[in-house]
Amino acid sequence: MAIHPLEEILHPKSIAIVGASARYRSQGHRFTRSLLEHGYKGETYLVNPKYSEILGIKVYSSLGDIPWSVDYVISVVPASEVLDMLDDCSQKGVKCVHLYTARFSETGRPEAAELEQRVLERAKEKGIRLVGPNCMGLYDPRQGISWSEGLPGEGGAVGLAFQSSSAAEQFVKLASPRGIRFSKVIGYGNALDFNESDFLEYLSHDPETKLILMYVEGVKDGKRFFNTLRQAVSTKPVIIIKAGRGKAGARAVHSHTANLAGSMKIWEALVTQAGAVSARDLSELIDLAVTFNFLPPIRGGRVGIAGGAGGATVLGADQCEEAGLDVVPLPMEIREELKSQGIPIWDWIGNPADTSITGSVDWSAGDTLQMMAQNQNFDLLIAILGAPRMGRQPSDVVTKHLEWYKVKEINQKPLLAVVEDKTLDINAYEDPACKLTCEMRAQLISANIPFYPTMERAARAARKLIDYYQKRKNTRI
Amino acid sequence: MAIHPLEEILHPKSIAIVGASARYRSQGHRFTRSLLEHGYKGETYLVNPKYSEILGIKVYSSLGDIPWSVDYVISVVPASEVLDMLDDCSQKGVKCVHLYTARFSETGRPEAAELEQRVLERAKEKGIRLVGPNCMGLYDPRQGISWSEGLPGEGGAVGLAFQSSSAAEQFVKLASPRGIRFSKVIGYGNALDFNESDFLEYLSHDPETKLILMYVEGVKDGKRFFNTLRQAVSTKPVIIIKAGRGKAGARAVHSHTANLAGSMKIWEALVTQAGAVSARDLSELIDLAVTFNFLPPIRGGRVGIAGGAGGATVLGADQCEEAGLDVVPLPMEIREELKSQGIPIWDWIGNPADTSITGSVDWSAGDTLQMMAQNQNFDLLIAILGAPRMGRQPSDVVTKHLEWYKVKEINQKPLLAVVEDKTLDINAYEDPACKLTCEMRAQLISANIPFYPTMERAARAARKLIDYYQKRKNTRI
Repeated sequence: MAIHPLEEILHPKSIAIVGASARYRSQGHRFTRSLLEHGYKGETYLVNPKYSEILGIKVYSSLGDIPWSVDYVISVVPASEVLDMLDDCSQKGVKCVHLYTARFSETGRPEAAELEQRVLERAKEKGIRLVGPNCMGLYDPRQGISWSEGLPGEGGAVGLAFQSSSAAEQFVKLASPRGIRFSKVIGYGNALDFNESDFLEYLSHDPETKLILMYVEGVKDGKRFFNTLRQAVSTKPVIIIKAGRGKAGARAVHSHTANLAGSMKIWEALVTQAGAVSARDLSELIDLAVTFNFLPPIRGGRVGIAGGAGGATVLGADQCEEAGLDVVPLPMEIREELKSQGIPIWDWIGNPADTSITGSVDWSAGDTLQMMAQNQNFDLLIAILGAPRMGRQPSDVVTKHLEWYKVKEINQKPLLAVVEDKTLDINAYEDPACKLTCEMRAQLISANIPFYPTMERAARAARKLIDYYQKRKNTRI
Repeated sequence: MAIHPLEEILHPKSIAIVGASARYRSQGHRFTRSLLEHGYKGETYLVNPKYSEILGIKVYSSLGDIPWSVDYVISVVPASEVLDMLDDCSQKGVKCVHLYTARFSETGRPEAAELEQRVLERAKEKGIRLVGPNCMGLYDPRQGISWSEGLPGEGGAVGLAFQSSSAAEQFVKLASPRGIRFSKVIGYGNALDFNESDFLEYLSHDPETKLILMYVEGVKDGKRFFNTLRQAVSTKPVIIIKAGRGKAGARAVHSHTANLAGSMKIWEALVTQAGAVSARDLSELIDLAVTFNFLPPIRGGRVGIAGGAGGATVLGADQCEEAGLDVVPLPMEIREELKSQGIPIWDWIGNPADTSITGSVDWSAGDTLQMMAQNQNFDLLIAILGAPRMGRQPSDVVTKHLEWYKVKEINQKPLLAVVEDKTLDINAYEDPACKLTCEMRAQLISANIPFYPTMERAARAARKLIDYYQKRKNTRI
């Protein structure tokens, strides 16, 4: 397979930040400190005639002053200076310019749109490729490239191509505590040169990426995009948010990245036809990401549920059914086994298995889950995990808690966990249950068990995974 | 207006916990320490022949040994001892017994259901009223009555009648950080004597309760319930979750509180006809509770949105429209005013107002919100609030952050805020933004501004509030 042109471009041996700044709140400073914090493995050069040093790094007055070669430029200069900068880049042999620089066509002003076109023409003339404008560019933890500090330092298998970089950053921050780590995250903005199809194609070729997530406001070439999408889906799952679905959203798209949002009905039909998965918003995208990231294919919708008390199990059953899962009655052979084991509540335990009924009976949610895991009437299991309570030996509270649920022992069936998210208030810092819940989440991630803040979200994501694999079973891969 | 029979019963001057226990993990201990922690203002008596003292309180061998009168008994004895206990209660002149005691009809066993009937008959014979069985009973912070430690100590205006006490406790814990405080919370379980209609009627009469929330698995007398509901709605808003909506949920209801779940279509029609509001799950109930608790009536759906960057505003607009709100274009008179003030991006700012476009322009989300608040084209406003960033003077970071949004200045229009919830992981404890976000939430609550973890949840809740008041405008109150 030929090497994708973005492969070399997105693995630069040196990066120059043109417009680097000493002002902490400027993006020119943020790019600089992010490369430092993430330990970018190539050479970092800073360019700005106003400074001689930033964060201990020498600053050059111009690109031409850098005595070594520069592969990749991050542009933080104003729009009016971009044409001149491209000339400098050309002389320096720069291969790609990432234009963080904005205020082009997205302003809705004809003169800004015209300047954008001239930037594209100049870049083409000089043989320079462009990422952006109006975007954050690349976060690649393995290479140590990032536009922001505080993003995870270790790499993972999830690749993002997002037209909105702020949405990409929000996604990274919200999905990290759910156990997602990233191969490449690309915020590509106005997509003047490289566009959504290029990045999708690249991620589909990238061996570090096992799952592709996209946020799209508009596409430059619909036919190419859906062909690329079909091709990408044949290699790995692709999940897409289409933003700008309504009237106001389409207006907002226009002033955000100067795209035309297009018809949602046609979009949905084409995405489905291509075999990709649709998500409505970042919350659903996070749920789907953890589902596809942690779970194997699930071949049917018959679910077994255990854990939780009373109302949580009743509403949980409702929500699973409403999401299209089948909450089958507890099979007779499990009841018979319970009876033969002398469990006095053998006739009362059901599916969902409400653990508040056990009282002093020696019978746990984990015992139930394990019997369901070994029974052929279930395709997947959901454990409702309560918060661990501080016991006498704080060191192994969480381990013992998870042992009670036996979640780590279950490997015959795909297992999802529901772990409630509580809005953080100042009391949470003093609440031992909050800290223990954090540790429980970390242990679940280590055990490759995805968790969800509500049953509804778990059930909906599971259903989409099932649909995805059922559809693929029926079509040629 | 006549005093409701529950008014006296739920304000006991003395409570005896029969079956109090010294074992920390038993509910007999939990009831005891909860009354202590919440500072119950009446007399607390403990009864258990096995102990002479628990938590520093004298324990009586029997109810009869207590030398003073007892109004209310919390029963933690096994089901088999309840009949005898009722005889003791009768001799002692007890008015009401709350049966935490379970294992009655919900087990599905004929002998247990029969015992339950005998308990009801015996109580009637002796003139004793019953709460439960199979429930947690009353949490009333003003009286200092609680079944659990760690629930808020201060009272509020939201009253709950929940068939599932664990769902009630979950609701209290999840809704507290959103600023909800409670008048009375009643977990009523199998509803053998007092039932959903009685508690609803009582809360509708209770002057401390301004908003009623219910979780219902089944109703004992449909006609009475919907009459009571219509009556209650004429005094204050009532929001209801119906649990046991599907096949599996109905099975779970039967083994949880021995109720028949009934037809959802008929239920929905009757709830709507009565003018009550339906919620699907606890998350939606929390959103609706903060909406009805903090906001005045909203008369239309034209929404103005400001704050957030790029993708968040595009998706936010989509989600508002999909929830049935009208994201109107920025009115021409606001544009003209911006232009006359010399704001260079006057033609670019829109609704939603994406604050990432302002750059170095002296123009804030708060300026936009304030102009929207003064403009007649908007019925409500939504502010997308980012996390405060640590600055040089940590003491007033949050205050300054909220000043930038001007949320406290806006009093001409109902205002909702979106403040992202992040799943807690261990890094959050070290992240200053998390702590500052907590403080921001506290300030929003003080300013009576409801906040929501996502735009979708804010928009859906707002739409239900608008529908509620639009419907009431068209009907006689």
